[in-house]
Amino acid sequence: MTDTAPRQRSGGRDARRAARLHAVVEREPFLTRTMAPFEVLGEEGLAIIEHNADTILEEVGLEFRGDPGALELLKNAGADVTGERVRFPRGLARQLVQATAPRQFTQYARNEANNVEIGGMHTVLAPNYGSPFVRDLDNGRRYGTIEDFRNLVKLTYMSPHLHHSGGTVCEPVDVPVNKRHLDMVYSHIRYSDKPFMGSVTAPERARDTVEMARIAFGADYLETHPVILSLINANSPLVWDATMLGAARAYAEANQATLLTPFILAGAMAPVTAAGVCAQTLAEAMGGMAFVQLVRPGAPVVLGSFASSISMQSGAPTFGTPEPALVLYVMAALARRLGVPFRSGGNLCASKIPDAQAAYESAATFGPTILAGVNFVLHAAGWLEGGLTVGYEKFILDADQCGMAAVFVKGVDMTENGQALDAMLANPPGQHHLGSAHTLANFESAFYRSETADNNSFEQWLEDGGLDAAQRANAIWKRMLNEYEAPPIDAGIDDALGEFIAKRKASMPDSEV
Amino acid sequence: MTDTAPRQRSGGRDARRAARLHAVVEREPFLTRTMAPFEVLGEEGLAIIEHNADTILEEVGLEFRGDPGALELLKNAGADVTGERVRFPRGLARQLVQATAPRQFTQYARNEANNVEIGGMHTVLAPNYGSPFVRDLDNGRRYGTIEDFRNLVKLTYMSPHLHHSGGTVCEPVDVPVNKRHLDMVYSHIRYSDKPFMGSVTAPERARDTVEMARIAFGADYLETHPVILSLINANSPLVWDATMLGAARAYAEANQATLLTPFILAGAMAPVTAAGVCAQTLAEAMGGMAFVQLVRPGAPVVLGSFASSISMQSGAPTFGTPEPALVLYVMAALARRLGVPFRSGGNLCASKIPDAQAAYESAATFGPTILAGVNFVLHAAGWLEGGLTVGYEKFILDADQCGMAAVFVKGVDMTENGQALDAMLANPPGQHHLGSAHTLANFESAFYRSETADNNSFEQWLEDGGLDAAQRANAIWKRMLNEYEAPPIDAGIDDALGEFIAKRKASMPDSEV
Repeated sequence: MTDTAPRQRSGGRDARRAARLHAVVEREPFLTRTMAPFEVLGEEGLAIIEHNADTILEEVGLEFRGDPGALELLKNAGADVTGERVRFPRGLARQLVQATAPRQFTQYARNEANNVEIGGMHTVLAPNYGSPFVRDLDNGRRYGTIEDFRNLVKLTYMSPHLHHSGGTVCEPVDVPVNKRHLDMVYSHIRYSDKPFMGSVTAPERARDTVEMARIAFGADYLETHPVILSLINANSPLVWDATMLGAARAYAEANQATLLTPFILAGAMAPVTAAGVCAQTLAEAMGGMAFVQLVRPGAPVVLGSFASSISMQSGAPTFGTPEPALVLYVMAALARRLGVPFRSGGNLCASKIPDAQAAYESAATFGPTILAGVNFVLHAAGWLEGGLTVGYEKFILDADQCGMAAVFVKGVDMTENGQALDAMLANPPGQHHLGSAHTLANFESAFYRSETADNNSFEQWLEDGGLDAAQRANAIWKRMLNEYEAPPIDAGIDDALGEFIAKRKASMPDSEV
Repeated sequence: MTDTAPRQRSGGRDARRAARLHAVVEREPFLTRTMAPFEVLGEEGLAIIEHNADTILEEVGLEFRGDPGALELLKNAGADVTGERVRFPRGLARQLVQATAPRQFTQYARNEANNVEIGGMHTVLAPNYGSPFVRDLDNGRRYGTIEDFRNLVKLTYMSPHLHHSGGTVCEPVDVPVNKRHLDMVYSHIRYSDKPFMGSVTAPERARDTVEMARIAFGADYLETHPVILSLINANSPLVWDATMLGAARAYAEANQATLLTPFILAGAMAPVTAAGVCAQTLAEAMGGMAFVQLVRPGAPVVLGSFASSISMQSGAPTFGTPEPALVLYVMAALARRLGVPFRSGGNLCASKIPDAQAAYESAATFGPTILAGVNFVLHAAGWLEGGLTVGYEKFILDADQCGMAAVFVKGVDMTENGQALDAMLANPPGQHHLGSAHTLANFESAFYRSETADNNSFEQWLEDGGLDAAQRANAIWKRMLNEYEAPPIDAGIDDALGEFIAKRKASMPDSEV
């Protein structure tokens, strides 16, 4: 893969405007961790889980449903195929993945300053995905619209703490199901210049996504540059269905990247135990990634894991509990051992509103997300109510936490200035450091400054209205949307995208499936 | 130290009642971690910080103020004493600590089932400490009273997730300053049977604490059993003052345990950088622990670190930011290298109310607290507003998080049942595990069940009143106080404590210092 700039970087007025804009939107394009990941299980335990995953693949196998081409590919690669059941001789799935899947890859953005590295010591943070509802303090909970979708794309574009525009940041329920992918992909391209995700709800919608990316980036460029990353969910337990296989194939054929993600609520789609969830997740993900590698060897794949538990009382998914955190740490280690990038985590919660429950739960997933070294993080901002709702205020609060993670992963500054020994040797007992030369020289950049926390005195806070965090976040997202300016885009590309969308929309009647 | 039971374990009716009670209040007495701590700095970095701490001790030294006896002890041990300034030849402070301080010790409780191990792979969680204000949803923020104090002791006693009764859980402002320690220590002994902390606001109040413990546990027992753990704060930078030295001496002479804790807001009491804060904290704490070891070799000491940053806007302390988390991880590693137990962390926040800010901030300290392997944790429940306020609802929410940590640190169950391989091999693709034998056998205990989270559907949550986490917590603490039953106590001991308190109170006029 080369670093050739995509063709809309055309210089002139647009480029100057972009330079101005990006001086304001100052940010690092992704996190690069300086510390080894936290481990909850040793070599022996990890090897047992790998062995169990292979046993599942060998004895039970996976079903690849409604896709004869997939069965043919897998059979030719050495799998034992009976009907739609595919059993992998021990080690085969792992070999197929390791033979050709890249350990790390670049996802290219419309603005090359926003290219992201997925894999290794890097962490890429993307917003909420898939919620049919949106919530804000003014209007409460309601179905999402294309306007909400655009708003969330704009907020993500403006946040220095999010690296990726994401995909279905909310479901734009006011646009027909069979056409909304066109508006969604256009929004990511037009209202942001960060990397984005494609449609997976039907193979032809995946192909539409690829076509739009070809228009935006150039067909030749796409052939060697992954610019789309898409979420391919397993239908756990042990099933890959035709829709997801078709979408994965469409992206792989175009050399675009996919996240192969078993979605497991323990006790429903897998056994209740962490070790069981991990073995099954690994088996399913390896099978999916092996399929993608057979479609196009070398197409970027990411091992995904979305795991949570369910409430005994309500049967509803729960978030922020300790068991999924253990699963996350184990899966991250298994992905490292396999040699592929890892997707999991986010600021997940079951709470309906951005209250203390939401924050405790989110932190209980996001902390492990960062310390496990997750490479690609969906749902890093906005998630509420088990993903049914994306919250505007929650988005702002979560993004602030993402900013803190960026500081944390840099670790301890051990330069001479960081050690501050001279400052301490010059300072006698009992004398404060507030006015010292070292403090004055470093104060401005010494500490992460939260955008959402109130650190004033109680009296000042009361005088300011006694607001809670969500109320402060409400003012922040409104100000951001008010200040939003779209990134530049080549007028010819924009017109071509509009024509493509109009043609595709005209080619089919509205449909709600 | 022996495991002889303290003398109030008298059997008969009280013992039966205790057995009943403790069957209800089911809990583990402390956490025992199964995973290695998270590290943010390697061997080289840690060695540099240790070297810098020694340089501070050698070149600047510490002031031991208003305590000629301390200066004498340190001089005789080889320190260079000029006035109140004590300079330690390189390595001396470390040697004094390592020569006699225990790596781990037991703090004994009135109920021996509640004894705690402080050090090693263990973590002991204690509630909030030191707040003049209390807050609850019904009455808002107000000065704490002895009734609030008792309530917090009772809630801590009842919580299966807190291991230690703590100390000044709030300031009982309605009792004169010079007498309130008597009521506080009595409350811990009478309304709980978990281990507790002593008074440190004056040496004679520390001695009163020891006397009361002698009444409750027996004077001989105390000589070989630490039953009091007390918080000795440095007056950073680089000062130990007479009050703290006197209190530390009183406890050490009685072979009781102390937490030697530099309290550092970076930029004020130390330089702004993490490496600077760590070197200074280590220097101060080693100096304090060396003093205690000279008073009584072998008296249990804990290396404490309380570090945070300050807001550039308000000058107020901030919590939940990434820099103090880095300090916490480094200090935990330095304590392990020194070979003493470590105190830090908690559910710290700057927020005035138990909102999302409070929860994000608390989690950003509490996560590192657990993953760094902190051995003794003050402020694990209730802290608000930089410690100025303890909140009833915050207490309940935090305690729930403590419960989750207890599950997390046990790690992944790799037994045959935990691996669940047979369950997965018996389950064909596409068939849910909800009704499987393995799920049914494990469901009851599979997942941590939060006491405060709402995991119902949105519609059910709305029907239940659409409450936030704080509102649910409000109902929980009220129910707990309503159900509270005091642990048994020997009537003779209780009378003797009452007589001691009455005599001491009568011996001096009320004073507000």
